[in-house]
Amino acid sequence: MCGTCGCHVIKIEQKILAINDETADINRTHFVDNDILTINLMSSPGSGKTTLLERTIREIGRPVAVVEGDQETPLDAERIRRTGCPVVQINTGAGCHLEAGMLAGALDDLKPAPGSLLFVENVGNLICPSLFDLGEKYRVVILSVTEGADKPLKYPHVFAIADLVLLNKVDLLPYVDFDPLECRRHLAAVNPRADLLPISATRGDNLADWYDWLN
Amino acid sequence: MCGTCGCHVIKIEQKILAINDETADINRTHFVDNDILTINLMSSPGSGKTTLLERTIREIGRPVAVVEGDQETPLDAERIRRTGCPVVQINTGAGCHLEAGMLAGALDDLKPAPGSLLFVENVGNLICPSLFDLGEKYRVVILSVTEGADKPLKYPHVFAIADLVLLNKVDLLPYVDFDPLECRRHLAAVNPRADLLPISATRGDNLADWYDWLN
Repeated sequence: MCGTCGCHVIKIEQKILAINDETADINRTHFVDNDILTINLMSSPGSGKTTLLERTIREIGRPVAVVEGDQETPLDAERIRRTGCPVVQINTGAGCHLEAGMLAGALDDLKPAPGSLLFVENVGNLICPSLFDLGEKYRVVILSVTEGADKPLKYPHVFAIADLVLLNKVDLLPYVDFDPLECRRHLAAVNPRADLLPISATRGDNLADWYDWLN
Repeated sequence: MCGTCGCHVIKIEQKILAINDETADINRTHFVDNDILTINLMSSPGSGKTTLLERTIREIGRPVAVVEGDQETPLDAERIRRTGCPVVQINTGAGCHLEAGMLAGALDDLKPAPGSLLFVENVGNLICPSLFDLGEKYRVVILSVTEGADKPLKYPHVFAIADLVLLNKVDLLPYVDFDPLECRRHLAAVNPRADLLPISATRGDNLADWYDWLN
């Protein structure tokens, strides 16, 4: 029961998540059957997901497809399309995250080639996307140094499920108050299993390590 | 009906919002009766809300009280407490926004003095907090230049309800690709009524204008 109004919202949330998980399993089977490696990219708004994808598509040397999630606008899909990469935009309207059913619908349009790498750029939000399995193989969280080293502690749910955390915008480290060691310690406290890889999607720092991780 | 599972989730969401609005009205009456000016501060994670509050508390020269919203940790409340300002921390756990009932509960503990300025620092999230009226007088959205100029278009709901948008971290403008005029144009497209005030909470740029606006 919901504490606010005594309704059955918790039960319904559980039902929505259960149905989402069933669809995620169908997506997962499709990815395995077609040798598609799917990455769910999650972060705050403006942490550099799209910039990282533009560069990754150009440099990784293997087929990539992208699904873009945003509340509104086709802006991110247009940026990806200019790289020549197949892309589908999902606009969630008032919605705050992608769900497995939305991804399934996008796959019908996108039809990623067997053997390709599929990036799902989730809606910019460090909270809600963490609840919804999309059927992806890996979850990558991007944190930018301008956001502060305390974020893994303050938003532990999304960091706890990450397979890798990219620490982006390290080119801005000289100009902000950010201690990478403190951030690493906070991440280890909520997720001892995920590595923290410092990168700069604009300047190129350590992107070879990112491509190695993907390959 | 919900598109995912055919449940009555939309109806229940409407019921939750209606009950939230009733509680928000009770909060609003309390604020008016006690001459408390309440500001709901919303932004992405790490855009500088707490840093701005620390400085505002020290410099504005009038009684301030603060309610801090975060998924986890008392870190922000501890920072505010060190300024000597009364503060209450709300931890939402899996929750992605503050609701009017949470604020009402916090007010029981905080008991802001009549005549004071009450800041409610919402959970760092550009989406969900925009749905929930807390009974505040004004809504202020903080956008930092590191997040990109396209954010008002991509997250229009929160920008559309803003009374003021603070463009923070302008001290980082020399190091990032951000066009303030483009941002101003995008904000005007979704909210012609809200002013965009460029500030730096760390360096102090234009904070006098922010205090003037509050007073």
